[in-house]
Amino acid sequence: MKIVVSGLGIIGASLCASLRAAGYPVYGKNRSENVVEYALEHGMIDGEEKSYEDADVVFLALPPAVTMRELDTAKFKDGAIVADICGVKGVLERLVFSRPRNYRYVGTHPMAGKETSGIRSASATLFKGANFIVTSCERTDPDALETVETLARAMGFGRIVHCTAAEHDRKIAITSQLAHIVSNAYVKSPYAAKSWGFTGGSFQDMTRIAGVDENLWTELYFCNRESLLEETEGLIERLTEYRDALASCDEEKMRALLREGREKREEIRRGR
Amino acid sequence: MKIVVSGLGIIGASLCASLRAAGYPVYGKNRSENVVEYALEHGMIDGEEKSYEDADVVFLALPPAVTMRELDTAKFKDGAIVADICGVKGVLERLVFSRPRNYRYVGTHPMAGKETSGIRSASATLFKGANFIVTSCERTDPDALETVETLARAMGFGRIVHCTAAEHDRKIAITSQLAHIVSNAYVKSPYAAKSWGFTGGSFQDMTRIAGVDENLWTELYFCNRESLLEETEGLIERLTEYRDALASCDEEKMRALLREGREKREEIRRGR
Repeated sequence: MKIVVSGLGIIGASLCASLRAAGYPVYGKNRSENVVEYALEHGMIDGEEKSYEDADVVFLALPPAVTMRELDTAKFKDGAIVADICGVKGVLERLVFSRPRNYRYVGTHPMAGKETSGIRSASATLFKGANFIVTSCERTDPDALETVETLARAMGFGRIVHCTAAEHDRKIAITSQLAHIVSNAYVKSPYAAKSWGFTGGSFQDMTRIAGVDENLWTELYFCNRESLLEETEGLIERLTEYRDALASCDEEKMRALLREGREKREEIRRGR
Repeated sequence: MKIVVSGLGIIGASLCASLRAAGYPVYGKNRSENVVEYALEHGMIDGEEKSYEDADVVFLALPPAVTMRELDTAKFKDGAIVADICGVKGVLERLVFSRPRNYRYVGTHPMAGKETSGIRSASATLFKGANFIVTSCERTDPDALETVETLARAMGFGRIVHCTAAEHDRKIAITSQLAHIVSNAYVKSPYAAKSWGFTGGSFQDMTRIAGVDENLWTELYFCNRESLLEETEGLIERLTEYRDALASCDEEKMRALLREGREKREEIRRGR
């Protein structure tokens, strides 16, 4: 089984390194030669590969727009398994199944990452214990799905989560996408920059992921625009309730709002 | 020097335990006998104390309203140092200096805590390396201030930060108070509860502090209402910009907003 990983950023290079650590031969494809050399020097790949045509399994570890171009126009071997790792799944699935393909598509979303990006942040242990989401529909090939899951377990993922692309996109809007917007907006308070010495754990938590790559995340957001818009509007509406309680000096209302949030959090923790 | 700590919750009992570990004799005051017994059994205090009248140093580790009542009506020894640990400082300082007092007041805010509260969460090492904020004005006694700082260092705090009560309250609105509101509001998304398996670090960060004690935090918020209202409105306005970019399909605007946040965060980190 020949595996090719396209795109050696933090996720792609970690896919390579963790698969190779598990004994699978892996070939890397990347437009920058420096990155391929880094991967070779650090033992992340067995060699470079410039095309997908010999590959039995291809992982596309690329931003959404490039992934879509590859899924739509690149040449794959007949029956090859082609998996992407994008943080949005609906638009990709719709594209792939819009016409017959000679390859077998599996959508995945490895729920791991860091605040930093690029191959220098990659490691063979990045995925250890993390969730691996696999999306499928009635047109997904069951054998291809099984192979991808086997490889995910070899990479060290702790749990394989199955769902539809639509379910993935709806949930990812609140569990990840909106969190990045909030963090990015939070840090812009005029007083945030003047407040070192005052920050405890809550400020660190709130702003850790503020430094997103604006190009990648804008792409991700607009591939999931409706769900994210709904979540953003929902949060603004909820925050406005706290604002109104403050503005109208309504302590009872504030107490009720905070109680509701505390109970909701306890409910979520119990349900875990 | 006789030290009395009133209120043996997580902060008060940790004050006791860390001072005692540093060799200071400490007496505890708490309305519930069970709590006093727990403190005695766990070696956090040398003994129980029912009044402040013999104390050279008193720490009031109580919610804002009770702290204000004590500062205004309790009997202290002439010249005693009385420090509070509330998360708001302006209202307390104004109350204390509204008329002559026979004690010397110092406002403090230990920047440490946990998601849990009560004496069972207390420890002699809670403050290790944390920031200790001391507020003062022209009416603060310099010797009292120095004694409180000496005790804070003995408790293990890593850094003593000086400021006015007004500066403290303005900064705490963004570094702590608003973070708790956002977390509390974030967790209420209808999809949050359905999304286990989808959550990575960003969701955990965003919701860790959602489970606030609604009574304490409502008090804190209304003691700092204007600053917190301004910060809440500022965040709602900023979030509305991202919302508008999504609603109007303006990718360029979204990219610019995210870039601005990333640069702001880098600026804050550099300034640290």
